[in-house]
Amino acid sequence: MKTVPLYGSVQDDLRHVEQVFDEVKNVDYGPLGEMLKMVLSGGGKLMRPGLALLSGRFGDYHLARLVPLAASVELLHTATLVHDDVIDNADTRRGRPTVNSAFQNSTTVMLGDYLFAHAADQVVRTDDLRVVRLFSETLLIMAKGEIRQDLAAYDSRQTIRDYLARIGGKTASLFATACEGGALVAGEPEAHVGTLRDYGYNFGMAFQVVDDILDFAGDPAQMGKPVGSDLMQGTLTLPSFLLMERVPEENPVTRYFAEPGDESLAAAVEAVRASGCLEESFEMARDFTRRAAAALSVLPEGADRQTLASLAEYILERKS
Amino acid sequence: MKTVPLYGSVQDDLRHVEQVFDEVKNVDYGPLGEMLKMVLSGGGKLMRPGLALLSGRFGDYHLARLVPLAASVELLHTATLVHDDVIDNADTRRGRPTVNSAFQNSTTVMLGDYLFAHAADQVVRTDDLRVVRLFSETLLIMAKGEIRQDLAAYDSRQTIRDYLARIGGKTASLFATACEGGALVAGEPEAHVGTLRDYGYNFGMAFQVVDDILDFAGDPAQMGKPVGSDLMQGTLTLPSFLLMERVPEENPVTRYFAEPGDESLAAAVEAVRASGCLEESFEMARDFTRRAAAALSVLPEGADRQTLASLAEYILERKS
Repeated sequence: MKTVPLYGSVQDDLRHVEQVFDEVKNVDYGPLGEMLKMVLSGGGKLMRPGLALLSGRFGDYHLARLVPLAASVELLHTATLVHDDVIDNADTRRGRPTVNSAFQNSTTVMLGDYLFAHAADQVVRTDDLRVVRLFSETLLIMAKGEIRQDLAAYDSRQTIRDYLARIGGKTASLFATACEGGALVAGEPEAHVGTLRDYGYNFGMAFQVVDDILDFAGDPAQMGKPVGSDLMQGTLTLPSFLLMERVPEENPVTRYFAEPGDESLAAAVEAVRASGCLEESFEMARDFTRRAAAALSVLPEGADRQTLASLAEYILERKS
Repeated sequence: MKTVPLYGSVQDDLRHVEQVFDEVKNVDYGPLGEMLKMVLSGGGKLMRPGLALLSGRFGDYHLARLVPLAASVELLHTATLVHDDVIDNADTRRGRPTVNSAFQNSTTVMLGDYLFAHAADQVVRTDDLRVVRLFSETLLIMAKGEIRQDLAAYDSRQTIRDYLARIGGKTASLFATACEGGALVAGEPEAHVGTLRDYGYNFGMAFQVVDDILDFAGDPAQMGKPVGSDLMQGTLTLPSFLLMERVPEENPVTRYFAEPGDESLAAAVEAVRASGCLEESFEMARDFTRRAAAALSVLPEGADRQTLASLAEYILERKS
């Protein structure tokens, strides 16, 4: 996996996390091994593991327990990505991009479960019941966030508040757990634990908002998905909500939901791009990174704190 | 939920487990609550929770920690049932019974994940890292068993040995964990822990073999699924394997796999029924219950040991 050269003092230690993935991929059952290779050898940036390790730098930086934590958050993340790939019969018609899926739905589900199991297996290796508890709470919050997103598909009555709650559960909670978990495993004082959780949460919010902006503005080749893919899946994100606020009556987004099709989608994407809503969304992302940076002030000054601050800047600049 | 009146001294305590389910169902998000009611208010026999509680009777029977364990194994079981309901586009044509599904595939997946999360949440409440570790190991084994079953669908080259390994992972491992977990939570001596695990494993093997027999011989109304539903899903079970051993050349089961259809299915079911393979399968189930009963000899004599012995007898007699 390629890593962003921004992880400072823990950059090299990420290879231990990748070694865990190599072990996970190394199974006695060939077909399963093939599937694991496909989902665990991608170009992941290892953001969550990087944050978990960095968060452990302000205490007893003990790799034997921090690496399993870091591996566990990435495995959990990968499991949810795999489960996101399960396709609805009904929805394929509604313009969902044809994922060139190598597996059937049932296999995809079981593979995700297998990755969940490995995530659980790794988190138990931290040997810290508080971390395991944090992990199970995060699982609950994430699953609830995913269900909300799923049931809210194609529903234009949602609000920005719903959106923030949803991405808080779906994305930011795991970033928060990566950071809080790192602090817990390293035996850091409660003040660090809380502030690293805040940092991670706001980092995750910014990360998701930028993701949602890139879905409208990014380069499809770099992103690996077509422009407007969120709308195609019936998912409203911040730029769409801002447009709907500005044009509460008939606007191109609600029009697309009412009559899904290539033309109405292109019109909706174009309207969002032309509206200035992407810039406004970016301001909100920047605001979240500011809060993340502010949380860091509680931590001792030094290279690791600087690395965390740079990472928060980096996610604003990323293009994919 | 109706419980089998066979759980002896723990019969009444099962309502505490049902209270946990009531709490799980009581969520602030209406649509999720509706879904949880559908999957957690069924007529489950609470076999796994019953075994977990009974296994704790030979030590420090501490409900505050045994109830979460019992709830956790049932929630995990329910999660896998929910995930089993995800349908493949390709497979629906192959005669898979039209599950009158109220949810879309993606929602089904997320609901299963949510139940997994609650299972994890409950097992953490045992406050015993060994039990949490056991739980994550079981999750791995079960997921691997499910993947094996899924990838082996419609494959006639499997053997009885494959079958036993598969049901060991898919079913027996969770029964073993329910019993071993109960013993661990109750702080029982290692000899109890091991023997209760053996009991649970063999109990689970017998349970699944009987299940697979009932799929051919049971009353569809009582079972809630059509006769031959395993074959319809491409799943070979013990009766089919025995028939294929007896008639290695062209036999009605491989013929059905080669040309799926109502007539070839009826022919396969009829051939299995007429062959004596169901009786032979039943002998194997009886053998597993004998091994389960034998394992009990290590435990102190008394009403609870007798209850476990009766339960092993009961599963041979069940009709649904």
